[in-house]
Amino acid sequence: MELRVDNRAIGVFDSGLGGLTAVRELTALMPNEDIIYFGDTGRVPYGTKGHDTIIKYASQDIRFLLGFDVKAIVIACGSVSSTALEQACAMSPVPVLGVLNPAVKSAVAKTKSGRIGVLGTSATIRSGSFEKKILNILPNATVKNRACPMFVPLVENGYFQKGNNIAHLIAEEYLQELKGQVDTLILGCTHYPLLNDVIADIMGKDVELIDAGKETAIETAKLLAEQGILCKRDSKGCSLFFVSDCTDDFARLAGIFLKQPINNVKKIEIDKY
Amino acid sequence: MELRVDNRAIGVFDSGLGGLTAVRELTALMPNEDIIYFGDTGRVPYGTKGHDTIIKYASQDIRFLLGFDVKAIVIACGSVSSTALEQACAMSPVPVLGVLNPAVKSAVAKTKSGRIGVLGTSATIRSGSFEKKILNILPNATVKNRACPMFVPLVENGYFQKGNNIAHLIAEEYLQELKGQVDTLILGCTHYPLLNDVIADIMGKDVELIDAGKETAIETAKLLAEQGILCKRDSKGCSLFFVSDCTDDFARLAGIFLKQPINNVKKIEIDKY
Repeated sequence: MELRVDNRAIGVFDSGLGGLTAVRELTALMPNEDIIYFGDTGRVPYGTKGHDTIIKYASQDIRFLLGFDVKAIVIACGSVSSTALEQACAMSPVPVLGVLNPAVKSAVAKTKSGRIGVLGTSATIRSGSFEKKILNILPNATVKNRACPMFVPLVENGYFQKGNNIAHLIAEEYLQELKGQVDTLILGCTHYPLLNDVIADIMGKDVELIDAGKETAIETAKLLAEQGILCKRDSKGCSLFFVSDCTDDFARLAGIFLKQPINNVKKIEIDKY
Repeated sequence: MELRVDNRAIGVFDSGLGGLTAVRELTALMPNEDIIYFGDTGRVPYGTKGHDTIIKYASQDIRFLLGFDVKAIVIACGSVSSTALEQACAMSPVPVLGVLNPAVKSAVAKTKSGRIGVLGTSATIRSGSFEKKILNILPNATVKNRACPMFVPLVENGYFQKGNNIAHLIAEEYLQELKGQVDTLILGCTHYPLLNDVIADIMGKDVELIDAGKETAIETAKLLAEQGILCKRDSKGCSLFFVSDCTDDFARLAGIFLKQPINNVKKIEIDKY
């Protein structure tokens, strides 16, 4: 195989803060890579919206990222990955990775009982994509789906720290039907790992939580290595953040989540793309 | 005064379902008027978004409604009324009414103790508009503000029926600091009256709840009468509904709320306005 080098950035997008769970892992795995992140905070959430609206928004997000000549696009959004992955791949000249396949592969490898839970937005659960993919690989699996439409608003409003009362109450309500029923639980929306501690607390320590953003980052690192398009550079990469609403709230919450101050956030007009 | 007649429709807009609280009252007060409603369901919520984003969205909503040659515009949205009322009035050749002034007038007239609570979105509470307006009229009032950012997602996800567990838990959390502290409580977001029963249950029957959408509808009826621009028609008016996301969910939830089937919902591309 010809050894190539590609110092272009990786593009990552999500409806808001959620995709940072993928960014955190991408940066840990490949510290030298540049990342261009877009969070569509002006139109968040996606997961309660309809099929056509999600496809329209995802197409604009991808066009925006392609403008930076990125070498790959990570759809760090469960709703888009479940609804619009084919369309996204069709419109992009560079590889596109969604969170669906990596999360399912990991869950199927880890489950012992074959009883797998899937948490997702309304759009994700309605699409049935996770369940179909799981049964495709593991036909005898038992899949329990649960839409959690209030989880994205919780995270976007900063209600994700351990001990947050409202987060705990809502999670209790959503998770009660899954407790004791599954040994592996896919967090099928990249916002949900921000509620990891709350979810783990309720599900108990024997249940393996699958972080879709993290699995996708691992898959992205593999793909770039296989295609020989990792960057070759000694210095640390930069991350640039773009949003469609004001930058202050995003910078503050992103900083808490990524555990480092975020200063380089710019606002753009996504509806022009 | 010259008696005029104006059979043009009244335009009403909100980020989503909330403005229907005004529509319900407008229809009850003036059954012969036509109403054009726009719910920006593709970009809901507004109240967690920044100042500039709210002004941009509100301007597009108003341009859309003006395209129908409406005779007045009702901003049935607390966040827009608190943030962008001046800009909205400046860009419209027809009268524009927000929910802020009518709600405050009613609260100030009804309070006995002068202790008034204001519930609103983050944008509304951050603006301080309700408190300023109350203190303007009643300088000795004590105002307790509470942002309730999870209330709009609750309503938009259909979690507004009495007995809904999640709605009750969240409302308990938000309202505990107001219980026993106020005799009048402004529901400063038009989504909140859909949670009226839940809120009333927690606050107790001695607290007067002010429905901002309803008060604005009453004010609109007065204004049209004063300006002699009520419609003169014997037949019942029609309501047309437009949204920026898919129509099914809106029609279903709007139907539950308005207690009649809603068939005439059309989707439009609001970012073209």
